[in-house]
Amino acid sequence: MRESRRSDCPISSALDLLGDRWSLLVMRDVLLRGKSHYREFLASEERIATNILADRLARLEAAGLLGKTADDPRSGKQAYHATDKGKDLIPLLLEMMAWSVAHDPQAAVPVALIAALEKDRPGTARAIRDAGGVEAFLAAAQ
Amino acid sequence: MRESRRSDCPISSALDLLGDRWSLLVMRDVLLRGKSHYREFLASEERIATNILADRLARLEAAGLLGKTADDPRSGKQAYHATDKGKDLIPLLLEMMAWSVAHDPQAAVPVALIAALEKDRPGTARAIRDAGGVEAFLAAAQ
Repeated sequence: MRESRRSDCPISSALDLLGDRWSLLVMRDVLLRGKSHYREFLASEERIATNILADRLARLEAAGLLGKTADDPRSGKQAYHATDKGKDLIPLLLEMMAWSVAHDPQAAVPVALIAALEKDRPGTARAIRDAGGVEAFLAAAQ
Repeated sequence: MRESRRSDCPISSALDLLGDRWSLLVMRDVLLRGKSHYREFLASEERIATNILADRLARLEAAGLLGKTADDPRSGKQAYHATDKGKDLIPLLLEMMAWSVAHDPQAAVPVALIAALEKDRPGTARAIRDAGGVEAFLAAAQ
């Protein structure tokens, strides 16, 4: 469990919830990659451990960033989706991406996405949100 | 010590460096509050522990986000400043702030800053960078 709220600074309170190496990667998977199932998150290239994933999903759901469907009657599996509060993290994720693109020579990003971010960052954030992820956004933009 | 790079995803590599509860608070102190000395960081309301502060300053310096002056010949103290790579985090911090303002009812932010962020976020980021912090930005904007 996390400690309690450290201050009323908005950056501090955001970090109380999101300040770790994994939470924003789970949100990336949901918001930018259109993932919704436990096994899809586990399959991401950073190889999150199953106990960490379960913890982060529970915390993100408790904080109102993710919602969960009832078990699928056929597969028995649950699907996660981002709430509006969760979707509002897209501009933050895109700023993080832009910072790495500027300063991390190994960062791998579709060039069409970099071009869109340079041209109109708020508009790109809205379009990715409407499309349900980067891949769908890029397909629609072609 | 941190584990090595998890992937070439730009969000993941940014979190390799910044994904904890304290690093971005130290950058907030430097970038938004004009702080430069160890004792000033220790005095922030979140009460960072001295060993964590020393670790984060060293890591942020090693990653090229902070620079350090030589010891002041009178006080014997070192001053930290943000590099361009560090200053490029201002838009990210402002997005984090805006997200909390929208979703955390307890978030405390100067109303003039909220108004500036709503009106022109990139311009506000540039003006805060030029002014050396939020307080100087707000004073100049009056």
